[in-house]
Amino acid sequence: MNIPQSSLPRVVIVGGGFAGINLAKTLANKKVQVVLIDKRNYHTFQPLLYQVSSAGLEPDSIAYPLRKIIKKHKNTFFRLAEVENIDTESQEITTNIGILSFDFLVIATGTKTNYFGNKSIETYSMPMKKVPQALNIRSLILQNFEEAAITNDKAFRKALLNFVIVGGGPTGVELAGAIAELKNHILPRDYRDLNANDMEIYLLEGSPRVLPTMSEHASKKAEQFLKKLGVHVKCDTFVKDYDGKKVLTNSSLEMESETLIWAAGVTGNPVKGLHGKSLLDRINRYKVNAFNQVEGYTNIFALGDIALMQTEDYPKGHPQVAQPAIQQGELLGKNLIKLIEGKPLKKFKYRDKGSMATVGRNKAVVDLKHYKFAGFFAWFVWMFIHLMALVGFRNRVVVFFNWCYNYINFDKAARLIIRPFHKLN
Amino acid sequence: MNIPQSSLPRVVIVGGGFAGINLAKTLANKKVQVVLIDKRNYHTFQPLLYQVSSAGLEPDSIAYPLRKIIKKHKNTFFRLAEVENIDTESQEITTNIGILSFDFLVIATGTKTNYFGNKSIETYSMPMKKVPQALNIRSLILQNFEEAAITNDKAFRKALLNFVIVGGGPTGVELAGAIAELKNHILPRDYRDLNANDMEIYLLEGSPRVLPTMSEHASKKAEQFLKKLGVHVKCDTFVKDYDGKKVLTNSSLEMESETLIWAAGVTGNPVKGLHGKSLLDRINRYKVNAFNQVEGYTNIFALGDIALMQTEDYPKGHPQVAQPAIQQGELLGKNLIKLIEGKPLKKFKYRDKGSMATVGRNKAVVDLKHYKFAGFFAWFVWMFIHLMALVGFRNRVVVFFNWCYNYINFDKAARLIIRPFHKLN
Repeated sequence: MNIPQSSLPRVVIVGGGFAGINLAKTLANKKVQVVLIDKRNYHTFQPLLYQVSSAGLEPDSIAYPLRKIIKKHKNTFFRLAEVENIDTESQEITTNIGILSFDFLVIATGTKTNYFGNKSIETYSMPMKKVPQALNIRSLILQNFEEAAITNDKAFRKALLNFVIVGGGPTGVELAGAIAELKNHILPRDYRDLNANDMEIYLLEGSPRVLPTMSEHASKKAEQFLKKLGVHVKCDTFVKDYDGKKVLTNSSLEMESETLIWAAGVTGNPVKGLHGKSLLDRINRYKVNAFNQVEGYTNIFALGDIALMQTEDYPKGHPQVAQPAIQQGELLGKNLIKLIEGKPLKKFKYRDKGSMATVGRNKAVVDLKHYKFAGFFAWFVWMFIHLMALVGFRNRVVVFFNWCYNYINFDKAARLIIRPFHKLN
Repeated sequence: MNIPQSSLPRVVIVGGGFAGINLAKTLANKKVQVVLIDKRNYHTFQPLLYQVSSAGLEPDSIAYPLRKIIKKHKNTFFRLAEVENIDTESQEITTNIGILSFDFLVIATGTKTNYFGNKSIETYSMPMKKVPQALNIRSLILQNFEEAAITNDKAFRKALLNFVIVGGGPTGVELAGAIAELKNHILPRDYRDLNANDMEIYLLEGSPRVLPTMSEHASKKAEQFLKKLGVHVKCDTFVKDYDGKKVLTNSSLEMESETLIWAAGVTGNPVKGLHGKSLLDRINRYKVNAFNQVEGYTNIFALGDIALMQTEDYPKGHPQVAQPAIQQGELLGKNLIKLIEGKPLKKFKYRDKGSMATVGRNKAVVDLKHYKFAGFFAWFVWMFIHLMALVGFRNRVVVFFNWCYNYINFDKAARLIIRPFHKLN
């Protein structure tokens, strides 16, 4: 893999998500050699992926070249590669571009869409975990609009304009709100040859309320906001099947839809080669101790979404969001140096900074530890936090300008079908 | 195709390039029904396509939704479609989404890459006439860098880092300059594991000088600028063959290269169905009269790059650039109204506003009628003209910000491999 030999211990980080890049930053120019490996050459700011899907932002606003992040880290190398196997005996990983030895291995591969074993849903629904997937959704929405404008078949037009989003977590809620804004502001202007009332947006959530991981106050407010935007919110509803045409649910609700967006769950991206009794939980998270060491190993770690660290406060593990990943990445960086120097490690303790979700212009919900609020101010806070969390000054400015422009003009400017999406059905 | 019946005469415009959109704008809310047809849902600002290829801009900066352009034109409809045939008898066109009758038909389909019949070059080279093609070039350049970083095969690394651009017109010159900036500013920072000196950029031009349609002063200056940036400029050189590995030319120059960008010529995109003796010239332009009427027809027009209007000043037709297309589109709009009202038509007379090309930061050449200049001021003029020519305030701001950012930071921020390009060889 052409990494220079070094007398320093080598830390191999697999995955350039929030956990991976924060670990890499903490280890910058420290007495270790760092190799950051990712299948893509950029970091994805996943919280704003839904804005790419809904034509509000282009990929370069939320994606950031990984090599640019580490450009001043003289001890760090990047490799565009996919890890295929770990050999814990020889301390080597096998990748599609060769073999690499490690002293410390950090698995920060995150999660992928979970279809819960339903092959038909996997085949016909649209996932939204990666930038190309978000672009596919953008293309499909716009292609559906174009197709609806030319068809004389009323039922087909209705199916084309019926957008079903499965999963009422932050991703589903935010995407439903953004698609509702397309209906409310873009369709009436751009598609005068369509009746905007023909467009429907359904948000289906299996549990009794949307945003089930947030407070009941947030759930109630989010549902109110969504309904105000015209989204049909159906709780206690899960999709049983979808063949590309018809959505079947556990209730009497059935409908024709050409677009089912699947945001109903995630499962880990584990790497082959680690052994141990029930090392992974049912959503493929590695069981780790308070130092993020994978059960049974001292030099192999798992971070963020793919780590299951059971603590008193979080008996089921930490939420699979950015903050635990960032905090674990930073702490592991410090702990690795301590480990090398033979000093005692520090246990991870999650500082919950709260959670939030936005539903649309002037509408968001925020849960802080002692204070929960919703509406315009929450929306403002949501924007500020997300802007500041973006990597790089340039991306912040581009996103900020796009938001201002879209806000003033009730617009979403990136409604381009650059690569048409080819439907299977 | 579901266009409402109307008592007004119907003008069908095929193609949303510079000619098509300027015609549509001139006919906005006039006493005609307008149907604008394009294969894509956006207008492409082709003069800046090379900045997408070289990771300086994202597609939304240079692409603009066609429906947004016509959103206030109450008499205008857009259809995403490909025209397959014209029936001049019944005054109908056949498209992939149905049949449409017309009273006036305007062919503004522009050009595509001309490989001059060489199938091997067509298969293995990279064209740059469309946004997805520009994105493919961006991906391939970055993929080559990544591959070069891991290979131990010196000859292969050299081939990966050898970028050959064929065609010394404005597109080739501007792209060569932009890729040279990647070598000079991005490689040394992002790819410390590569030697930037291993990267070579060749610009091959078949005629005795680059920018052959501009003044000799401009050619000379552009060549100087290119050489300063480290580009190998080879005039009187044309590529005889390329198999994805080896470039063969008419001279003794031969080299291994994994990337051949083909900007050596264009040919028209004519539509089937028009009859007449030698209606098309050798680069597939329709012969038109001074009103852009296609030879032998009074209600069928061709505009811009696909029109060959032979005048005293331009015996070989007008240059295939934006200005003739824009001016012909505007004039035809006025002439169509005159035609309907039975008034005499106005002949087209091209106002040459000059030509220009940029080579890199602070380096451009400008030819005006009585004044030719080069360097920093020319570069400034180039930027201003291109910014103002972009469609839409938002795109101007986004491009302006990106240029400022890239200028200050010697950066190109969109170096993302969103969809990897799959090479054939």
